[in-house]
Amino acid sequence: MSSTSAETARQRLSELRDAMRRHQVDAWWLPSSDPHNSEYLPEHWAGREWLSGFDGSVGTLVVTQDEAGLWVDSRYFVQAEAQLAGSGIAMQKLTQGQAAAPMQWLSERLAAGDTLGYDAQVVSLAHGRQLDELLGQQGVNLRGDKDLLDEIWADRPRLQLEPIEPHDPRYLDQTRGERLTHLREAMADHAADWHLISTLDDIAWLTTLRGSDVGFNPVFLAHLLVGRATATLFVAPGKLDAEQTQALAEDGIEVADYADWAARLAALPRDETALIDPARVTLGTRQALPAEMNVVEAFQPSTLAKGIKTDHELAFVRQTMEADGAALCRFFAWLEECLSRQEPVSELDVETRLREQRAQHADFVCESFNTIAAFNANGALPHYRATAEAYSTIEGDGLLLIDSGGQYRGGTTDITRMVPVGEVSRAQREDCTLVLKGMIALSRARFPEGIAASRLDALARAPLWATGRDYGHGTGHGVGYFLNVHEGPQVISSGASVAEHTAMRAGMITSNEPGVYRPGQWGVRIENLVANRPAPASEFGHFLEFETLTLCPIDSRCLAPLMLDQAELDWLNAYHAEVRRRLAPLLDGPALAWLEARTEPLTLA
Amino acid sequence: MSSTSAETARQRLSELRDAMRRHQVDAWWLPSSDPHNSEYLPEHWAGREWLSGFDGSVGTLVVTQDEAGLWVDSRYFVQAEAQLAGSGIAMQKLTQGQAAAPMQWLSERLAAGDTLGYDAQVVSLAHGRQLDELLGQQGVNLRGDKDLLDEIWADRPRLQLEPIEPHDPRYLDQTRGERLTHLREAMADHAADWHLISTLDDIAWLTTLRGSDVGFNPVFLAHLLVGRATATLFVAPGKLDAEQTQALAEDGIEVADYADWAARLAALPRDETALIDPARVTLGTRQALPAEMNVVEAFQPSTLAKGIKTDHELAFVRQTMEADGAALCRFFAWLEECLSRQEPVSELDVETRLREQRAQHADFVCESFNTIAAFNANGALPHYRATAEAYSTIEGDGLLLIDSGGQYRGGTTDITRMVPVGEVSRAQREDCTLVLKGMIALSRARFPEGIAASRLDALARAPLWATGRDYGHGTGHGVGYFLNVHEGPQVISSGASVAEHTAMRAGMITSNEPGVYRPGQWGVRIENLVANRPAPASEFGHFLEFETLTLCPIDSRCLAPLMLDQAELDWLNAYHAEVRRRLAPLLDGPALAWLEARTEPLTLA
Repeated sequence: MSSTSAETARQRLSELRDAMRRHQVDAWWLPSSDPHNSEYLPEHWAGREWLSGFDGSVGTLVVTQDEAGLWVDSRYFVQAEAQLAGSGIAMQKLTQGQAAAPMQWLSERLAAGDTLGYDAQVVSLAHGRQLDELLGQQGVNLRGDKDLLDEIWADRPRLQLEPIEPHDPRYLDQTRGERLTHLREAMADHAADWHLISTLDDIAWLTTLRGSDVGFNPVFLAHLLVGRATATLFVAPGKLDAEQTQALAEDGIEVADYADWAARLAALPRDETALIDPARVTLGTRQALPAEMNVVEAFQPSTLAKGIKTDHELAFVRQTMEADGAALCRFFAWLEECLSRQEPVSELDVETRLREQRAQHADFVCESFNTIAAFNANGALPHYRATAEAYSTIEGDGLLLIDSGGQYRGGTTDITRMVPVGEVSRAQREDCTLVLKGMIALSRARFPEGIAASRLDALARAPLWATGRDYGHGTGHGVGYFLNVHEGPQVISSGASVAEHTAMRAGMITSNEPGVYRPGQWGVRIENLVANRPAPASEFGHFLEFETLTLCPIDSRCLAPLMLDQAELDWLNAYHAEVRRRLAPLLDGPALAWLEARTEPLTLA
Repeated sequence: MSSTSAETARQRLSELRDAMRRHQVDAWWLPSSDPHNSEYLPEHWAGREWLSGFDGSVGTLVVTQDEAGLWVDSRYFVQAEAQLAGSGIAMQKLTQGQAAAPMQWLSERLAAGDTLGYDAQVVSLAHGRQLDELLGQQGVNLRGDKDLLDEIWADRPRLQLEPIEPHDPRYLDQTRGERLTHLREAMADHAADWHLISTLDDIAWLTTLRGSDVGFNPVFLAHLLVGRATATLFVAPGKLDAEQTQALAEDGIEVADYADWAARLAALPRDETALIDPARVTLGTRQALPAEMNVVEAFQPSTLAKGIKTDHELAFVRQTMEADGAALCRFFAWLEECLSRQEPVSELDVETRLREQRAQHADFVCESFNTIAAFNANGALPHYRATAEAYSTIEGDGLLLIDSGGQYRGGTTDITRMVPVGEVSRAQREDCTLVLKGMIALSRARFPEGIAASRLDALARAPLWATGRDYGHGTGHGVGYFLNVHEGPQVISSGASVAEHTAMRAGMITSNEPGVYRPGQWGVRIENLVANRPAPASEFGHFLEFETLTLCPIDSRCLAPLMLDQAELDWLNAYHAEVRRRLAPLLDGPALAWLEARTEPLTLA
């Protein structure tokens, strides 16, 4: 995306400092965020990237008159170092558990009476409070009423005006009226008269509408204000046609201008109660509420409700997985044919061809994230993306990692498979097999309903740990239903995410994606999506198990089969039998032949 | 211990309310705690038990003029209900994650201007802050300067005056001088001039002294104040003889009166910095410091240092495990002989005989906790203890659970084994086998050094979860070296204990004790102690694995061997071979015969 040069970054930094002087601001805080706490930022809010030239997905830029630092996590140490070289901005390493590091840095540089500026419209309430706790208490003034970027970013992209469309009701068994009713019950539990929602996937889910304002995520820029009997959807004028506006009105949802959000909040009755989730609204939103209003803070009810897919939705997801699996088989048959004929195939070709295969299905809308097609050493970068300027050709020997997914009207997919190219070494086979063992161990797990998802993390890692291997990312993330490929509330991670709201509930869809990365050599990741379904209950309570949703062969030519025990082998053979049973009817020709070859039962005899 | 009747409890409650009126206190807060945040309370501070008659280890009593409630956790619901019947005190259930429930209860009953009283000397700083946050902010006055129990508890036990003795230096390879030097390095990291320590096991460890003021824990009542060059040990006069006092002086530790702790803190230099751990000092201690003093709060350095056993200490622990294992073999041979001859054996006999066998070793000091000998349904109560008033005779068919341990000068032991009595049912065998599978899975784990111990919890539970079983307690606790059988910092639990200070380090000793409990029927728990030792490092970092320390056969007559896979069977046979190799030289006669029979290799052929 970005092509900000070091020289341009220096120039923009200098202009920001001029603006800071004009406004008597001593330090500027520029996070990767928008008014909706989005993971993928609309270009209008990609100011950190515009200014610094660092185009990773997450990073916090902090600027004083003398210094500038950009805090990035371990995924981006190499990339940020390269992209920031010569810009006057220092790459700062954000290590796990040290999220407050840029605030600490500021606290050492600012004195009582100094002013820290930021745009409160894009700082989450939770972060705003941390800034206030650390810096406010040492006498630093915090000022969030002005976005200095407006003064220096001449061609700042305008807000998207893409149309908003309904999610075809045939994919749903709940109306937005029903979803609002359930939400109002949750509001009543908190004795709340109003609920403020800014997260785009929650708004899309609640309104059963979809948009295309944010890359890969079928959401639209909006805020939603839900009252006990009324609801107001704030979107830019022109995004909803008359028919949709009318349909919303019939469901008791009036439409207002996106720009009127703060003013409308300010006019809420002072003696009533508002429910907000401090991790999901911004400081600006909180500050817009009347100071006297009673505010209840709690985990956002729709985030949990959205995470629990209905049987109707899961039935569509299974169909979608068949369509996605068939597209993958056609793709892999083509790829294998090219490789066997020694035709040059690049990582970019993989991306294009995969998209084309998926796009053959009528329900396909777009990719659910940037395809990662990463050959050998590129695979060791978990967030690698081939670009026209830098990509590899798939030739010689080794491993090709392909992590891709689609947005279909009947569900969102996300799958990673390993492709053997030429000769696969013993060490590569061992890595693949151990990663598969971890994925199988988690796939086979049963566990008490309601436990924090992260308590399962070690099950996927244990086979890797046993041989001194590990991976630096989480094991699984929640996945939406024709919505964001990353969604909460559950997450299977190595971190401290064992909070109550991350509890496992039947109907949730989660990725299962252990890996092994060898910098400069190769990377391995194998990923299926799994759904929580009830297992037999007992006197010890209710239990869940995983239904594997993803349908696509796991190439045994990357494996060292003797490292699998009988139970693992049985799992793999049963999975391949199911994949063949479900996908064969959708395929013919080389794709069917490929499916049949790749799902042959594996035996150790 | 306690025999407070319901009538006595009512009388004492009434006297407390009179005292509350005299002092204009509207509610009284009486937790299970002492000035040292001890798990086992010296009798002087067992006021909650004295007043209420509930003799469980943990419970918080809250009294107003109209109501009284005692909050207990799920272990004690049945027992507290019975012991509080007719006392005028309502049993209140404390459910997981609801630790603030008694505070909430108070907050609904107290208004601005009301006064809540407690003894700040026994309220931890962390809890005191919670009270202040919830109640102080709603205008309730908090008063901690007076212990009302003093006015109504006529025969309140005096503080123990047991002598303090040195831990024989042959068991140690660090002097207290070296330990203080390391502690001062940690203090320097926090720029602290002073460090306040009140936890008894930390003080015993730092001073290499031992006592007998608290049941089962070889510690003594003391506070320790460490300065940059000085140190003061606060103990009651007469507990240290002249020789010990002189030896301490030579190591730069002066001795002061236990009663002078607060006064000495108040006299610390106002412009210096004190280091405290808010979870390990009381509110009273914090309040004793000069208000102007700079206070740094951090995890207590000695708690981590104490948890990491040296190679020298681990060598003694291995010897101790041999002695403990030999005592157990002699005991089990006797028990089996009695059972085979149909001689009546009671749960109390088990306790006595076990103690006698352990006491034959010269290094044995005392039991490390109350032996749990629990036959059939009694075993379903994880904290059961047979008493002279209520115990079972071991006869008929079923399972006997024995959880016991010893304090030896060369280490602390804690072991649980299952004994088959008569006919063991298929269901009982399945429970035992699944618990063993969980224990073996954790025993065999390798894992990255430095991960939070609780991340391993699911490994022990997965085999139980797979069949719809689970257990309500943690999987493992840290164990001291001739110190408390429960110590931090690491804990393998289902809770949210993934804080940085619970990281696994080489040399830590932890219990591994999954279980299954069927109320009214039987309970199963199998427990070994394991030590963290380095596993081969790799490019992915440093790894640890467990060395099993406990040496005692696991009775295969309680098992369903066909449920074990080959790797589990191999583990069990290798363990039994090691147990036989290490214990046989220490045994003869029936005990040796028992060891040999119980360590025969198990085969599935």
